[in-house]
Amino acid sequence: MVLDDLAVPIVLAPLAGGPSTPELTAAVSEAGGLGFLASGYLSAETTRDRIEAVRELSSRPFGVNVFVPDDSSPDPQAVAAYRDRLRAWADQRGGTIGEPQTTDDDWDRKLELLTADPVSVVSFTFGCPSREVIESLKAAGSEVWLTVTNPDEAAEARGAGADVLVAQGAEAGGHRASFVDRPGLPVYGLLALLQILARTESLPLVASGGIATGAGLAAALCVGARAGQCGTAFMLCPEAGTSPAHREALRSGTDTALTRAFTGRLARGIRNEFMDEHSDRAPIAYPQLHYVTAPLRKEARERGDAGAINLWAGEAHQLAEERPAAEMVQSLAAEAREALETSRRLID
Amino acid sequence: MVLDDLAVPIVLAPLAGGPSTPELTAAVSEAGGLGFLASGYLSAETTRDRIEAVRELSSRPFGVNVFVPDDSSPDPQAVAAYRDRLRAWADQRGGTIGEPQTTDDDWDRKLELLTADPVSVVSFTFGCPSREVIESLKAAGSEVWLTVTNPDEAAEARGAGADVLVAQGAEAGGHRASFVDRPGLPVYGLLALLQILARTESLPLVASGGIATGAGLAAALCVGARAGQCGTAFMLCPEAGTSPAHREALRSGTDTALTRAFTGRLARGIRNEFMDEHSDRAPIAYPQLHYVTAPLRKEARERGDAGAINLWAGEAHQLAEERPAAEMVQSLAAEAREALETSRRLID
Repeated sequence: MVLDDLAVPIVLAPLAGGPSTPELTAAVSEAGGLGFLASGYLSAETTRDRIEAVRELSSRPFGVNVFVPDDSSPDPQAVAAYRDRLRAWADQRGGTIGEPQTTDDDWDRKLELLTADPVSVVSFTFGCPSREVIESLKAAGSEVWLTVTNPDEAAEARGAGADVLVAQGAEAGGHRASFVDRPGLPVYGLLALLQILARTESLPLVASGGIATGAGLAAALCVGARAGQCGTAFMLCPEAGTSPAHREALRSGTDTALTRAFTGRLARGIRNEFMDEHSDRAPIAYPQLHYVTAPLRKEARERGDAGAINLWAGEAHQLAEERPAAEMVQSLAAEAREALETSRRLID
Repeated sequence: MVLDDLAVPIVLAPLAGGPSTPELTAAVSEAGGLGFLASGYLSAETTRDRIEAVRELSSRPFGVNVFVPDDSSPDPQAVAAYRDRLRAWADQRGGTIGEPQTTDDDWDRKLELLTADPVSVVSFTFGCPSREVIESLKAAGSEVWLTVTNPDEAAEARGAGADVLVAQGAEAGGHRASFVDRPGLPVYGLLALLQILARTESLPLVASGGIATGAGLAAALCVGARAGQCGTAFMLCPEAGTSPAHREALRSGTDTALTRAFTGRLARGIRNEFMDEHSDRAPIAYPQLHYVTAPLRKEARERGDAGAINLWAGEAHQLAEERPAAEMVQSLAAEAREALETSRRLID
């Protein structure tokens, strides 16, 4: 298992949509953790190019994360009404609104790519691929990791043949990885989710969500994780592709919230004007709304306007530090060791 | 400090509204943890009687938890509309609806009692008492612990003179302890909240929310808590006053959710018919709605109807075990030690 061979039990979160770069992936793997490359929102060709770029920088194992396409059909009227609302807002405030699109994020071609030219780990977000898909990737030599947010998803992932469960708590920045997005879905904090899965599942667990410090990593290990997956903690690294306005927001103490306002799927970001204005009205419509807001967000990033950017961040984002990824890996590991020692003395 | 003298870093959550008993409080203190007695919903006289009952069972330190009264005035029309809704539901389903009442939960007389005849620790929920109140309790010989749910509340509690901060994560069963209840208030998972407070606050921290196992306790210690506060974990103990229907629900794997349906203040309970039916329509109106639903809930408890009871429970309630409180304390501590040892080997 890839987890057995890591020098430090740290996994980079995929960080689709900007922060993910081959340089960041390679740096985490080179430092003894497991780097991940996001293929979400990218074509299979770009994914292939980035995989090549990682391989040029490192010969260590790394993973590629793929979005499972959603075959639900959102109500076109709800999408149109929300788009009208955003257009009115953009007309006043400045910005371009896009057209809703339905894509499968180049699913078939990414699977072809990853079976023809396998990487160490393929992880999935937003669903549970079929047993056939999972078996074909395993037959090609990859481990398959599935991201789950509740005990039912964990059981389904195990049934489909997952090698590892990435347990995502509510604290996590970016999209909730839930297999579906619907109102009233249970939302577990990381600590509760891991305690439950440690009792019910025998697959190795990777903990994801709000792990911002080595102490947080130590905590995740205590509740049964084999490694902690950190995303926000690496977003200020020079190797990350995080935009300047996003970096500035990460350093602030502003609260985060869950919202569908930007993409039509529940995601955690730092509260800003766009989120406060539109969250209550956003329908469940992914990836349609992603495309509706994409031009607006791109323009806002270019002009440094944090009020209209999806500022994905975990709940403890203010603890992120600006330092090279290799240093971050070493520092998280050292701090985790120290936290475990100190805690042991509290309960002797 | 009381925390320094605990044989095991385990604090009993107050568990107002039924599960709290002098027997449970005494058993946890006798086992080397810190027992807490809930005074919420009780008169000062009943609180005094229960304090006496604890003292007859144990000479160890214990704490009393007090609800800080809310001086906001909810919209009477919203309360009346919600009450009409519940009356229609109760007419169909069976059950008595009460009158909305405004009380301060016998605040002044409880403070008189606790300054005249102090206990080791007085903790507060639902607000930050004035500096004068805190100083008078400290002058009487008690430590004052304030329950906080976000970094701003932590800073306010420190400013008011708290000795210890009880950091409550979103995973916690029962009421959110937030100083106010309003829409859009930030909700932190325990792991994220503790990592942040460990950096920003120098007061001792007690971790509360979803700590259902010794592994969870170990995790809380790693992120800087001096002790873990467990509530749901003790609700199946024979010493607890938990109703039979509530006990049965705790053993199930049914999800929890946050709701204002029962009391007008946000609280986490196991999802049931009442919650699913009314949560979306419940206004912020505490304690008014508590009194509106109290007769209905009492009747439901008596006839064992879990569909109409406020089944307060933390996110990991299915891990609770039916065993004497002293055994639970010892088992949590032993499991925490083991989790710390095992984790240390993962990161050597």
